[in-house]
Amino acid sequence: MTELQQQVEDAIVARRERVNDAIPEELPVTRPEKLYEAARYLLDAGGKRLRPTMFLLVAEALADVEPLSEDYRSFPTLDGDDVDVMAAAVAVETIQSFTLIHDDIMDDDDLRRGVPSVHREYDLSTAILAGDTLYSKAFENILETGAEAERSVAAVSELASSCTKICEGQSFDIAFEQADEVTTEEYLEMVELKTAVLYGASAAIPAMLLGADDETVEAVHGYGLDVGRAFQIQDDLLDLTTPSEKLGKQRGSDLVENKQTIITLHARQQGVDVDSLVDADSVETVSEEAVEAAVGELEDAGSIEFARETAHDLIDSGKGRLKVLPDNESRRLLEGIADYLVEREY
Amino acid sequence: MTELQQQVEDAIVARRERVNDAIPEELPVTRPEKLYEAARYLLDAGGKRLRPTMFLLVAEALADVEPLSEDYRSFPTLDGDDVDVMAAAVAVETIQSFTLIHDDIMDDDDLRRGVPSVHREYDLSTAILAGDTLYSKAFENILETGAEAERSVAAVSELASSCTKICEGQSFDIAFEQADEVTTEEYLEMVELKTAVLYGASAAIPAMLLGADDETVEAVHGYGLDVGRAFQIQDDLLDLTTPSEKLGKQRGSDLVENKQTIITLHARQQGVDVDSLVDADSVETVSEEAVEAAVGELEDAGSIEFARETAHDLIDSGKGRLKVLPDNESRRLLEGIADYLVEREY
Repeated sequence: MTELQQQVEDAIVARRERVNDAIPEELPVTRPEKLYEAARYLLDAGGKRLRPTMFLLVAEALADVEPLSEDYRSFPTLDGDDVDVMAAAVAVETIQSFTLIHDDIMDDDDLRRGVPSVHREYDLSTAILAGDTLYSKAFENILETGAEAERSVAAVSELASSCTKICEGQSFDIAFEQADEVTTEEYLEMVELKTAVLYGASAAIPAMLLGADDETVEAVHGYGLDVGRAFQIQDDLLDLTTPSEKLGKQRGSDLVENKQTIITLHARQQGVDVDSLVDADSVETVSEEAVEAAVGELEDAGSIEFARETAHDLIDSGKGRLKVLPDNESRRLLEGIADYLVEREY
Repeated sequence: MTELQQQVEDAIVARRERVNDAIPEELPVTRPEKLYEAARYLLDAGGKRLRPTMFLLVAEALADVEPLSEDYRSFPTLDGDDVDVMAAAVAVETIQSFTLIHDDIMDDDDLRRGVPSVHREYDLSTAILAGDTLYSKAFENILETGAEAERSVAAVSELASSCTKICEGQSFDIAFEQADEVTTEEYLEMVELKTAVLYGASAAIPAMLLGADDETVEAVHGYGLDVGRAFQIQDDLLDLTTPSEKLGKQRGSDLVENKQTIITLHARQQGVDVDSLVDADSVETVSEEAVEAAVGELEDAGSIEFARETAHDLIDSGKGRLKVLPDNESRRLLEGIADYLVEREY
């Protein structure tokens, strides 16, 4: 691991601890307790907190302060005021958690972060309602930063339109499962809506709250979008290239479950018979050799390389956008996070 | 029907038409079409639009303008500016529709407004996602009124905290179904959260957007809360006192389904064996005589009268709060709507 990689990991861990401390403050378990326990269940089960980490680092880079030197609850704006950036950083994680709870219902997934999904641990009604509660709590919390009203309006507006787009992305994702033909462009649009938009918001909202100019807001927003798309592509790649032990689930499970990814879509466009790539009915019965052979075919078709290049291009583009920020350590960590997301092995 | 009752009905119809025209403008069916069609499905199926009507009437009373004389899209504030009150009025109806879609899933109800519920017409995933989409669209729309930023923040904050309370109320409602003992006070708290809070927001948000002072905002908010609670109690009463033909469903169905209402909870406190009141397994098999006898017992216990009095006290309290408004026709219509809600027979 390079020195920068280590610094990036340390930066993520340090901010994750702060975020983990803030979650019970922003989302206390009050009456009715069962509802709030269910709402907190996934958040308490873990998570890297990449979005709030990106949020806090953008704030630190913009304010040009020593990393971790400032109180996130009373953070200096660009014009000498102070705002509670942590309340808004948690709001982004809260939205992420709400979407996971509802997505797990839609996909009927039993497990998430190594624990039962909320509708399995509790029940369908509680899971729907826990997600709905997180949804509105995020909007309550993002309005409690103490920022100037104009900036709060910009921030909450960005959060609302991001949520709409996430729903649109999830709708496309569900539709793609039944679709005969999906292009890589359509897939990337879906990924932008479903995944990247919340990274975009995580980078843009701190800039809005601190009073950055429009050009800066737009640039960091673009950084988040680029990195978010690359993140999803890397997820698709890891499913094929990381050994099952490291992945925590069967390698190649996307192939077995006929999930469309940028890799399979590219291969299909190259004439590969993707549906017959793995001859197995379930992830329980597939052999490591069958996955290996399928990955070989995808490599031969140039699809693995295509996905890698697309992810790297996005990362380069995202890092380039950070030039609007002051040249400081936080900016270098944001560049490092971008690299980290496509270099990570699980 | 008295002249005022007729005026109230006319006022509701006139504003409903404007709201119905605005809904497709605020919630256009765009890509992905299936998602937005599902999101619009219940809204297009009908509804009295009582909440947006209350919203628009509060705006008209406060601005002290001739009813229906102003363009709701460019409505005069108290300090000579103008705002799009319709965008925010629709947002309240949008939230109502989102809660109905998700509630129908939780209660596994097949019908709503005479048509299949969204999860029946479409499927579970689409219904969850349609509700989630309406949720964020409401927040987008309420931010598009053109109001001063401070006022927008107050309005969106009221909407967010209302949504949280609605979720809490729904959680209590579900818990009460399993609970051995619920007091009328606990029931009224649940009704306030689940139902009344959105009426409170419907009355308070127009006052916020127009720039009314805190005292006025608080007073009209209280009016909405009172009227909303009375509305739910009246719903409970109608189930027992309105003939099945008029009700559009079996009279006494709450009793058959052992649903807790303020009437049964009061009767229980008076020592009535509520669980044995109606000897029928389903609303399909219950006889009109059995319901009649049960209602007789509830009358003897004073429970019907208790509910009627509670509703009327709330209506009187709500109407009293309207004294902060200018003395004009819109204010009289708001008083009339309060009476209408407890005088209505279905």
